[in-house]
Amino acid sequence: MITKPHDHYREDIPGRADVADTPELLDYYAQLDALKTGALWTVANKIEPWHPKSASVPTLWRYRDLRDHVLRSVDLVTPEKAGRRVIYLNNPGRQDVSAAVGWLYSGLQVMRPGEAASAHAHSASALRFIMEGSGAYTVVDGHKMTLGVNDFVLTPNGTWHEHGVSAKGSTCIWQDGLDIPLVNSMEAGFYVVHPELRQAVTHPVDDSTATWGGVALRPQIHGAAGTWTKNYSPLFKYEWAPTYDALQRMASLGDSNPFDGTLMHYVNPLTGGPVMPTIGASMQLLRPGEHTLAHRHTGSFVYQVAKGRGFSIINGQRFDWQERDIFCLPSWMFHEHANASTTEDACLFCFHDLPVMQSLGLYREEALAENGGRQPVA
Amino acid sequence: MITKPHDHYREDIPGRADVADTPELLDYYAQLDALKTGALWTVANKIEPWHPKSASVPTLWRYRDLRDHVLRSVDLVTPEKAGRRVIYLNNPGRQDVSAAVGWLYSGLQVMRPGEAASAHAHSASALRFIMEGSGAYTVVDGHKMTLGVNDFVLTPNGTWHEHGVSAKGSTCIWQDGLDIPLVNSMEAGFYVVHPELRQAVTHPVDDSTATWGGVALRPQIHGAAGTWTKNYSPLFKYEWAPTYDALQRMASLGDSNPFDGTLMHYVNPLTGGPVMPTIGASMQLLRPGEHTLAHRHTGSFVYQVAKGRGFSIINGQRFDWQERDIFCLPSWMFHEHANASTTEDACLFCFHDLPVMQSLGLYREEALAENGGRQPVA
Amino acid sequence: MITKPHDHYREDIPGRADVADTPELLDYYAQLDALKTGALWTVANKIEPWHPKSASVPTLWRYRDLRDHVLRSVDLVTPEKAGRRVIYLNNPGRQDVSAAVGWLYSGLQVMRPGEAASAHAHSASALRFIMEGSGAYTVVDGHKMTLGVNDFVLTPNGTWHEHGVSAKGSTCIWQDGLDIPLVNSMEAGFYVVHPELRQAVTHPVDDSTATWGGVALRPQIHGAAGTWTKNYSPLFKYEWAPTYDALQRMASLGDSNPFDGTLMHYVNPLTGGPVMPTIGASMQLLRPGEHTLAHRHTGSFVYQVAKGRGFSIINGQRFDWQERDIFCLPSWMFHEHANASTTEDACLFCFHDLPVMQSLGLYREEALAENGGRQPVA
Amino acid sequence: MITKPHDHYREDIPGRADVADTPELLDYYAQLDALKTGALWTVANKIEPWHPKSASVPTLWRYRDLRDHVLRSVDLVTPEKAGRRVIYLNNPGRQDVSAAVGWLYSGLQVMRPGEAASAHAHSASALRFIMEGSGAYTVVDGHKMTLGVNDFVLTPNGTWHEHGVSAKGSTCIWQDGLDIPLVNSMEAGFYVVHPELRQAVTHPVDDSTATWGGVALRPQIHGAAGTWTKNYSPLFKYEWAPTYDALQRMASLGDSNPFDGTLMHYVNPLTGGPVMPTIGASMQLLRPGEHTLAHRHTGSFVYQVAKGRGFSIINGQRFDWQERDIFCLPSWMFHEHANASTTEDACLFCFHDLPVMQSLGLYREEALAENGGRQPVA
Ligand SMILES: [Fe+2]
Ligand SMILES: [Fe+2]
Ligand SMILES: [Fe+2]
Ligand SMILES: [Fe+2]
Ligand SMILES: [Fe+2]
Ligand SMILES: [Fe+2]
Ligand SMILES: [Fe+2]
Ligand SMILES: [Fe+2]
Repeated sequence: MITKPHDHYREDIPGRADVADTPELLDYYAQLDALKTGALWTVANKIEPWHPKSASVPTLWRYRDLRDHVLRSVDLVTPEKAGRRVIYLNNPGRQDVSAAVGWLYSGLQVMRPGEAASAHAHSASALRFIMEGSGAYTVVDGHKMTLGVNDFVLTPNGTWHEHGVSAKGSTCIWQDGLDIPLVNSMEAGFYVVHPELRQAVTHPVDDSTATWGGVALRPQIHGAAGTWTKNYSPLFKYEWAPTYDALQRMASLGDSNPFDGTLMHYVNPLTGGPVMPTIGASMQLLRPGEHTLAHRHTGSFVYQVAKGRGFSIINGQRFDWQERDIFCLPSWMFHEHANASTTEDACLFCFHDLPVMQSLGLYREEALAENGGRQPVA
Repeated sequence: MITKPHDHYREDIPGRADVADTPELLDYYAQLDALKTGALWTVANKIEPWHPKSASVPTLWRYRDLRDHVLRSVDLVTPEKAGRRVIYLNNPGRQDVSAAVGWLYSGLQVMRPGEAASAHAHSASALRFIMEGSGAYTVVDGHKMTLGVNDFVLTPNGTWHEHGVSAKGSTCIWQDGLDIPLVNSMEAGFYVVHPELRQAVTHPVDDSTATWGGVALRPQIHGAAGTWTKNYSPLFKYEWAPTYDALQRMASLGDSNPFDGTLMHYVNPLTGGPVMPTIGASMQLLRPGEHTLAHRHTGSFVYQVAKGRGFSIINGQRFDWQERDIFCLPSWMFHEHANASTTEDACLFCFHDLPVMQSLGLYREEALAENGGRQPVA
Repeated sequence: MITKPHDHYREDIPGRADVADTPELLDYYAQLDALKTGALWTVANKIEPWHPKSASVPTLWRYRDLRDHVLRSVDLVTPEKAGRRVIYLNNPGRQDVSAAVGWLYSGLQVMRPGEAASAHAHSASALRFIMEGSGAYTVVDGHKMTLGVNDFVLTPNGTWHEHGVSAKGSTCIWQDGLDIPLVNSMEAGFYVVHPELRQAVTHPVDDSTATWGGVALRPQIHGAAGTWTKNYSPLFKYEWAPTYDALQRMASLGDSNPFDGTLMHYVNPLTGGPVMPTIGASMQLLRPGEHTLAHRHTGSFVYQVAKGRGFSIINGQRFDWQERDIFCLPSWMFHEHANASTTEDACLFCFHDLPVMQSLGLYREEALAENGGRQPVA
Repeated sequence: MITKPHDHYREDIPGRADVADTPELLDYYAQLDALKTGALWTVANKIEPWHPKSASVPTLWRYRDLRDHVLRSVDLVTPEKAGRRVIYLNNPGRQDVSAAVGWLYSGLQVMRPGEAASAHAHSASALRFIMEGSGAYTVVDGHKMTLGVNDFVLTPNGTWHEHGVSAKGSTCIWQDGLDIPLVNSMEAGFYVVHPELRQAVTHPVDDSTATWGGVALRPQIHGAAGTWTKNYSPLFKYEWAPTYDALQRMASLGDSNPFDGTLMHYVNPLTGGPVMPTIGASMQLLRPGEHTLAHRHTGSFVYQVAKGRGFSIINGQRFDWQERDIFCLPSWMFHEHANASTTEDACLFCFHDLPVMQSLGLYREEALAENGGRQPVA
């Protein structure tokens, strides 16, 4: 019997596996294999790496490259046949699971005035970030939200939801962010089409922000509806105007975070925690000329440039970005961000899996010690 | 030996104590008394009442009655001698503990431009609600907050704090709300005068709102300061403008709470919970002509009329109020609120001990069942 | 008009009130009084003390003094008339509220074989600690618990409960511990007699310990009963044998707490927190000859000697105790405990209001710095 | 250019993607691919399945098959070269990630008297369940635990740990359970070898159970050590005797869970939550003749038979097991368990990723509706 070698992960370091193949061992390995087992020392160094090595590749998707293709889908497929007209971002290292980075999916969806997608529910959690157009709306469990550029909306795990564009609006493009790859990898994905393909709007339009969108305020709601028992935010829409206002006020204090500039996490106002258990989101302002220091941490991140232009350096590779571009940051890669303008601020929207990292106790962080905290660019 | 009677709490109800005095029992009671004990059945019905009977009296303090007296204190005492020039509200049923209602203290403080009170710390928790004047400020642990009318500020348990009015401002009057009676009754009151009678302002002015006052946003703060471990809100100032704006937006949804109109609780943005562990606060809007239904619940409440005019009915007694008046609601008394205007909304600020009721599991609530849910007025 | 003096709390210390009475001020105070107000500076130093001064008096109740009086109540009153035959501990400083110390009530209850008290519910929280006799039982919401000496049982806020002694048992005496004074002071006391004066036992006897009394184990319970939403422990009975066993094992590690010896808090196994939101309980072992160091903290404590003999020094006063004696520790008094035996361990059961102190953020603690950490005895 | 077909996931159902390939579309797909993107409708039905389809295969590993191979590793490799002598379970569907099921790793480790593995730390969380032998011990962060059959011990994320067998013991075999595949898939794996390959034992042996292993008791620990801030249990060892005792007592109540028999989750005694954030563990007793009803839920489970014999039916396939056998249950497969003995109870130890499912909001459960709740066996 010919067996492939089993000793290519050897490390000559005390405390690590370092067993050379022998004919006797190879025979033993074959016997183990027949019993649906293996010898740990043949894979230990592989499955217990010294530090994370992401399968994802840092990638920038330029909006000027994608926009026409996104719009062209309008002519190529109908919403009825396609379900949704979406071009998804396919990280070269994660094509098997259709992920933009790590276990996060992202896509660009287009919809014409008067169109609407069919209502459904799934155990993936989702958010939408509006990139262009007017008249977009989303309905979540009977709550209708109108959406403008740089707003984002949640459609959490298990909610009935649907998207549309008002007949009076213009063609809209937005970014979808979901944890589909994560939910699939956890073998926990369920999908249901709404029995009527539409849901009724059972609350006043934009009641979610009118109710939950105050500054450090919790509404007193009468009766059973007053007790929110879901594990996601009751605030479904986060608007750009108050977010940008808050970032500007914080930035004006003059003392920004060396690694993040001025960064605000969107939170569940009932708990102060992330908007959903599996996806967090933030908006980050870089002041004119600001260039952050490099650090790295676990977690996967998808950025969209909400305002301005600049560049990011990820593991020594420079990515120049401008408004509407999208780029991703894989786990445990050094990164730093810079605003290329000396007069205008730049803003980066981001969604990520930090809530997962934190729930599971897997978050770690490290500043770059060398080179004054800045990466040399390859 | 002559003993006073011991049987005045008898109730002729199965399950309740109903023991008549006898000479033998009175003798027994005297022996127990000598041993620092007593017979439970002599007091059981007193100490286990069927429902709460508050020692506090519903009371309205009209600002037009108090304002001159408050201002007169400026001429009568110096800040140095008085510590603070405050006229406190003395509930007729709680004079022994200087409480406005229940275990809550409240007072009206006056300060002239250029004055400041000395810095100190105490285990009582406090808040200030600005009633009139410009230029007021508070410093809490090195954070300076500028304060306008209808703003309120926290000075939590254990923080160094001081109040002042800018030399460019005008004479200011504000309402203090504290849990001094509660903390004393819990035998947990500590007080420290700042060694220098002043504290340094170590952060940019109003950094607390610039940092924590966003809409459903949590700042990413670098280093140790990023982990807030206190049991009170890091947002110290709650401003009137965004609060009133949020109330108006929620009221515009058209569907208010039958017992509370449109009511928002001020919360700790990090947790969604109360601003401090012992004192909660809320702002409530009554739409033109709105008249709520009556209910009762445990907890003690001090209201200040932030806007408009109307009346409240408390246990059948009507209290007419207008802007700046203060009134209190004792525990387990039926209450309903009405806006007397048919064109303007009315707003009631309130601070209360609901966080205590909830932490201790003592909150209960009951709607008035009779009379269409409205109290007959005595 | 003659007014009593208002300046007896003056302190000649910067930052404290120090206003002398004048005729003009006394006149002013009278006007304020008529408006149900007062001048803060006349009471500020009283209501903002430098540190807590408990109204309670450290007191020891010797069981040999009380036992006969407790038993005598059996002949003096019937359970039907008395409700319960209980001799309560009446702290000299708290007679107005029938408290043993602070806001805690305690009493000794006696019951003969075959007797049972009527079922009822109240918003006070209670526990029972068995002192002598066999056959005692308690029923809480349909769960019947059999009780032996040094066991204790919860009857939390809002539960239907009743106590009895089996016809095959012997006369039992137990200690009741309740937060009646606290609940009354919070104006939140409700009382209901069970409509049938008896409740059905709807679960197997002692199912509470069989279900929840494992070592670091949580039962998987099917259906709605699997979700416990109460704010108190689902484990109602805490037995002596496993508690003493745990204390002995921990004591055998050789390294006890300098201030508490070997102390275990009884906890809600679902949360690790206190057994009820307003009352905590602990059992403490002092090794032969052990004498703890003195410290003081906020909170009120009622101790019962579960085993052995020794003494405690409270604010310089020595209290010698032996099995079944009860003593109390008021807030912020220095205390140290000593086991008088050099061969046997001693155990102190204790219930207290630490959960209240901690929920409300009022806990503080301080070691005695002088004299090697031991108090001189007066 | 020849492109492979893109339409093999079509579903002819409203709300699902159903787009047929055309030359124009295939050309479009090629252009998208060049931009690191794709058309969602080509993969939507694949990545949004109707319900989970596990990649893992239900598998039983018989101990009588494995034991000799495990022991043989002692002769084949040294601990120095192998690191640890472990035969890992290699689920046929998960060989790429060396998982027993889902994202869970498991292996059988053998160690001779006097041997010890080198100390290290990693971000994978681990537990050990002792299968045979005496004298086994584990050291975690300076705490040494002695281990007997059916005991299990935690070595949580980030702790220094090492395993050994006392020179006076016998050859030991235990089961390792880790979340290595999960941590790798989350790209969060770190590994450190202890600088001295050994750690000092800095606490009394078995202090963890002596301190934290009481029944519903929390030790009062002095100083900084009294505040446990880790996200895993301070109790590291869970012993068989008290666990089996608790199961027997609960089983004696007569009313077991229809789907789980009598099942207890091992918990963190400080929180009542799972022992570690990523791995939960339970022990389950099936009474003589007990046969549970079938249900399915998300999550992956590895069972070891701690006592007795019986069978489980997983998605219609019957697996007969006896003491020390191991089997796995993949996500969303129907399962039921039966005790084959009519006189002895049977016990199943299990570790699983339910804490992950619950943190991430991905837990779902469904009873089998048909066939009286029992699966037909294929
Ligand atoms: Fe969706
Ligand atoms: Fe970062
Ligand atoms: Fe103060
Ligand atoms: Fe109310
Ligand atoms: Fe009672
Ligand atoms: Fe103490
Ligand atoms: Fe390890
Ligand atoms: Fe199951």
